[in-house]
Amino acid sequence: MLNTKHVTTSAPGKTILFGEHAVVYGKPAIAAAVDRRVYVKIEKREDNRTHVNVEELRVSGFLNLERGLIEFDNGEYEKKNILEYVLKSLIKTNTKDGLEVTINIDIPIGAGLGSSAAVTVATILSSSIYNNINLTRDEIAKQAHQVELEVQGAASPIDTTLSTHGGVIYLSKDAEEIITLDINTEIPIIIGYTSKRGNTGKLVETVKLKVEKYPQIMNPILNSMESITNHAREALVNGDQQKIGELMNINHGLLDSLGVNTEELSKMVYFARKTGALGSKITGAGGGGSIIAYCPGRVEEVISCINKFENAFKINISVEGVRLESKE
Amino acid sequence: MLNTKHVTTSAPGKTILFGEHAVVYGKPAIAAAVDRRVYVKIEKREDNRTHVNVEELRVSGFLNLERGLIEFDNGEYEKKNILEYVLKSLIKTNTKDGLEVTINIDIPIGAGLGSSAAVTVATILSSSIYNNINLTRDEIAKQAHQVELEVQGAASPIDTTLSTHGGVIYLSKDAEEIITLDINTEIPIIIGYTSKRGNTGKLVETVKLKVEKYPQIMNPILNSMESITNHAREALVNGDQQKIGELMNINHGLLDSLGVNTEELSKMVYFARKTGALGSKITGAGGGGSIIAYCPGRVEEVISCINKFENAFKINISVEGVRLESKE
Repeated sequence: MLNTKHVTTSAPGKTILFGEHAVVYGKPAIAAAVDRRVYVKIEKREDNRTHVNVEELRVSGFLNLERGLIEFDNGEYEKKNILEYVLKSLIKTNTKDGLEVTINIDIPIGAGLGSSAAVTVATILSSSIYNNINLTRDEIAKQAHQVELEVQGAASPIDTTLSTHGGVIYLSKDAEEIITLDINTEIPIIIGYTSKRGNTGKLVETVKLKVEKYPQIMNPILNSMESITNHAREALVNGDQQKIGELMNINHGLLDSLGVNTEELSKMVYFARKTGALGSKITGAGGGGSIIAYCPGRVEEVISCINKFENAFKINISVEGVRLESKE
Repeated sequence: MLNTKHVTTSAPGKTILFGEHAVVYGKPAIAAAVDRRVYVKIEKREDNRTHVNVEELRVSGFLNLERGLIEFDNGEYEKKNILEYVLKSLIKTNTKDGLEVTINIDIPIGAGLGSSAAVTVATILSSSIYNNINLTRDEIAKQAHQVELEVQGAASPIDTTLSTHGGVIYLSKDAEEIITLDINTEIPIIIGYTSKRGNTGKLVETVKLKVEKYPQIMNPILNSMESITNHAREALVNGDQQKIGELMNINHGLLDSLGVNTEELSKMVYFARKTGALGSKITGAGGGGSIIAYCPGRVEEVISCINKFENAFKINISVEGVRLESKE
């Protein structure tokens, strides 16, 4: 067997269309892989050390795969933990030291687009190919989810599933089943994101405290979110544009009632609607981060409106999940 | 019996603290009379005609009480219907032609503060005194509600009850009972209002269509609003400031999910919270109109913050309802 000199893979990010926060309480959710990707290149190093460079984050460091250690070169503290995902992914695939790992993230960071899951999934495919291990997509998804659990303590399987398989998924009640939705029509969605980053763990905790303090108030809200997601599943499959938009708008208000909205997100949501979006809502944990706007026929208008005060870009659903880009 | 030369009465406006829109579906609500008033002066005219001048609206006209007709001098079309309330109130109290009625409204118009109910209630007290008729408060409230029903087709008894009796009321499920809440502490509330006026009828209709289209989504939201109002009743009576604020914030998100929020209202709501309000929400029908912010210890700061881009003022709960101001 010839030794691999270098291998590059890529994996898509994701966006949550419906059901964020409610999933924490066993409610269903709908999410889609998007055509913004993470690229992971692994190549042999002359020495026996393992070095990782995450260019867009300006984070780099040496890994000791044998002992499971990281020695950072530099990087902001809060961005450094991306190397944890890389370390654990490489260990998962029995990788030996002596690699240069170059990671390019073509996904806005901290915008709730699942960049860490994409890094994990792409690293697992790269290193398994590098090590001549054949993994099925299901095995990649499973290992990547384990890595996320190890790094974060808790993790929904949504991000890693989408980065691996691509497409649009419906995560059923209590995460018992992941159902691929067969959506033929294009979903013209734009993402608007603020420079302010929400702290997912903290936000989930804030919501939890509210649910515990006011169960009679909050449980009906979670039930309503469940019903929205189930209606949305039907509307997405049937391409019912009006309904998709209406359901997004209702869902946004409920996310506001959970306390995860901000003035900036709210402004983007309302400007998107004013400019012709059929619906718009927070996507992901909120408290900063991103919104999605559903804009059939009005994509350019909504983007240029939001770009006046925040950042917006169009996304397409990525049918393809993780893939090999090049190898030698 | 001496003939009355002139009589002036006043009645307070109101603000809804919790439960707007949900009341339409038989859910409870909490509302308070506020210290902004309408003044109605009735005096004898030399001729036998009846003339009304609503100064702040720049609406005036001659009424024919015998035949139930209005002949407008001037005024914008949408503001003219205030004279309908005056006409029907004067007829209700068997008033004969030959009056000059001067109305001063010290309540921002269209801000959801119940100015038309206050005009109605004060006119009924003025004209009953002018006609030497003794009405109890309950009779005034009942007649005023009838006038609102005649003019608007539908009307909750909240506005007329508060304008008549003052104080804070809890309107029970299905409007079966109006309970006066005994609130000792001051409620430091500010009102922020936009120049954009919401169309209550249209907004109620929009919500109704949503409830009919998505009962499984919307009914839990209405149930959550009911629970918020019941929790708030307790919190208000106990003076639990933190809770009052939290419940307002949750209620605001639910109003957003009904589709009655706007970019302007949302901005005021978030700026109020940022400036230290413990809670803030749309008050009334939304779609323009007003917000309330609950600001213990931060009243001045929140007012001056909102005044930078919209209008805000402090209100106090008015313990006194309709009252005689002067008579000769």
